[in-house]
Amino acid sequence: MNKEKQNNQMYHSGMLYFDPIYREHSREPVDIPPINAVPAFTMHKNPHEPYKAVRGAKINDDCSVTLTIHEPEAREVYLAGKGYSLLEGPYMMVQNENGYFTVTLSGLHPGFYHIEFIVDGVRKLNPEMPMVFGCSTIVNFFEIPFPDEDYYILKKVPHGTLRFEHIWSDICDRYRGCWVYTPPGYDKHPDKRYPVLYIQHGGGENEAAWIWTARINYIADNYIAEGKMEEMIIVCNTGFAPKEVGEDIFVNESFEDVFIKEILPFIDSNYRTLPDRLHRAMAGLSMGGGQSRFIVHSHPDLFAWLGQFSSGAGFVVKSPDGYYGNPSDFSDLFKTPEHYNSLMKLTFISCGTEDPRHSYTSKQCQELADLGYNVEYHAYPGNHEWEPWRMSLRDFMPKLFK
Amino acid sequence: MNKEKQNNQMYHSGMLYFDPIYREHSREPVDIPPINAVPAFTMHKNPHEPYKAVRGAKINDDCSVTLTIHEPEAREVYLAGKGYSLLEGPYMMVQNENGYFTVTLSGLHPGFYHIEFIVDGVRKLNPEMPMVFGCSTIVNFFEIPFPDEDYYILKKVPHGTLRFEHIWSDICDRYRGCWVYTPPGYDKHPDKRYPVLYIQHGGGENEAAWIWTARINYIADNYIAEGKMEEMIIVCNTGFAPKEVGEDIFVNESFEDVFIKEILPFIDSNYRTLPDRLHRAMAGLSMGGGQSRFIVHSHPDLFAWLGQFSSGAGFVVKSPDGYYGNPSDFSDLFKTPEHYNSLMKLTFISCGTEDPRHSYTSKQCQELADLGYNVEYHAYPGNHEWEPWRMSLRDFMPKLFK
Repeated sequence: MNKEKQNNQMYHSGMLYFDPIYREHSREPVDIPPINAVPAFTMHKNPHEPYKAVRGAKINDDCSVTLTIHEPEAREVYLAGKGYSLLEGPYMMVQNENGYFTVTLSGLHPGFYHIEFIVDGVRKLNPEMPMVFGCSTIVNFFEIPFPDEDYYILKKVPHGTLRFEHIWSDICDRYRGCWVYTPPGYDKHPDKRYPVLYIQHGGGENEAAWIWTARINYIADNYIAEGKMEEMIIVCNTGFAPKEVGEDIFVNESFEDVFIKEILPFIDSNYRTLPDRLHRAMAGLSMGGGQSRFIVHSHPDLFAWLGQFSSGAGFVVKSPDGYYGNPSDFSDLFKTPEHYNSLMKLTFISCGTEDPRHSYTSKQCQELADLGYNVEYHAYPGNHEWEPWRMSLRDFMPKLFK
Repeated sequence: MNKEKQNNQMYHSGMLYFDPIYREHSREPVDIPPINAVPAFTMHKNPHEPYKAVRGAKINDDCSVTLTIHEPEAREVYLAGKGYSLLEGPYMMVQNENGYFTVTLSGLHPGFYHIEFIVDGVRKLNPEMPMVFGCSTIVNFFEIPFPDEDYYILKKVPHGTLRFEHIWSDICDRYRGCWVYTPPGYDKHPDKRYPVLYIQHGGGENEAAWIWTARINYIADNYIAEGKMEEMIIVCNTGFAPKEVGEDIFVNESFEDVFIKEILPFIDSNYRTLPDRLHRAMAGLSMGGGQSRFIVHSHPDLFAWLGQFSSGAGFVVKSPDGYYGNPSDFSDLFKTPEHYNSLMKLTFISCGTEDPRHSYTSKQCQELADLGYNVEYHAYPGNHEWEPWRMSLRDFMPKLFK
């Protein structure tokens, strides 16, 4: 089970950029008798000769994790965590006879771990493990599967398509990258139109995070196959809006402007959306959750569904300072619970219970709920890290557009 | 001009995975007066404060290249090339006051360079430069633009969509990743059908190589905008066919089987193709060129267009050994020039003039051409590296399906 889940996890990021299985050579000796394989004209090495995949991170049956890195010349190698992962380290690694350093970690909770290898004092990426952009840099990761949950796993169900679009921004004076998920059957039903979920990444991430890290496309594939979720288009856009104003000098333009004036029109004119407020949701984690709340509450004419996961500013109706000097005042939208509830179909707020944002966000939400505002608060185990965010998806997506 | 082209180059791979422009902090001090930027609610740092993008590789106006890497604690850092690039190195780097090591390289020819940084004896990836899978591993790269050519550059023209598909393989008993380019307007014309180019990567690469490295999608966008090329679907599939036969133990199944029995049917049933031999081309570089020649010549019922760029086995009609134990015998297809020419609309063979494969491949092609076979040979400056392959695309794609 773990083996299958681990393979599953590797597939996605591996296929999206670097699949260790395709590596030309096994560095470890392979002591396996020849197998009667189909002659493969195209193999880079003898096709009849099996090879051992190099796997930098391996989840064992007892849910411990064995990490290896090929460093035949190194004197000292250890493993460190990033973010909230593995803060108890460093974990010293031991060199084996094949030039690999290795360590096995036990007792970790299931979930997603950003890690880095320190090789003779130098941070190093391990090319035999998957990588993501996270923690404001490029970083290796591994995942320990949740024993009782598989909603986020690549399964043999109909799959949607991930599409990468180039969206020109007049505001930023550059092209911006954008990932769009279309549900299974999108191309087969050219007359059908779909609701849209716009989902934003956190401060140290980019537009690929909800796909590569959270696997939102697999969650959607699985839920759609099980009839648990409405078919929808999912749009993952970068939350920054850099414009070059001098040689390598950038300022950030207003993401709200880029989003409302450029992204929304692009999606509505290039995809078969249902282009009205009742069929448009926006959600995000941390910085992206704050963006979503700000934009949805500023534009109730455009959105009726909101998700805000672990956002630093909590959940506020009115703030003289707001974020970064932008005052926020949604008093008019909140003037009565009836008014708010008539416009907002869902306001889904969540946070990890170990996240310092939990206490004040939950308090603000409870105050609103006590007054009759239809604001849901969900608490999940974890800190400011991926487990609460994926669990938020798990519970948020089935509620949308119903 | 170079600046613009360099930005252009950064965009593509940056957007596809890691865009240095989104980095949270500039590590170098930025001495710039405040700019009246639009207040950007969503910026991670003060939106009014401009920041300097960290750029690991910078092409200067004189086409020299300045490389930097942030290594405040390192004693010795140098730059090495991989593949055929920068073989004259190593190039020692010098530390500046901000913890960066830097070196400027002059006199390099325009083109694509795989590089690696050696930090105190350890190979290291630079997270502030783009990366690709190449040379059988993950590696940084930079490009010096060709001064007189811009057919492969991201321009402000209508853009096609890059789509990532999960294709289930019964033969490999796993999902396989596949990139598909659809031309601009594909979604707007649901009754239109298109020819398909299948294009295969080389031995040390993966299915993303023709996109990330060669930028085949920009070439297509630009050529279609200029009316130089037929609108077509382009399919980039991995050329390996690994199947797990034991714990982390793999054998390669027949790529030909996977391709003919699984990939082709998937594309023809999920995309609006013109599913006949006259509207199907296959091409590739090195290993992928050999695969293409083998498959096209084995299946003239399925293909009428062939491109083979820099393939190790040259160009042969009959070989008792063939590749890796598979004898190849296309004598029937080649029985007369008239027969061959009646079936094959285009046989486009190319190689770099410095590549050791040039001499025997050009000789084999000339012998066939002298006999009346419609086989084109194209020689380009360069060795077994990306310049001849991108130039092959430049000349090959406009000929297809005409």
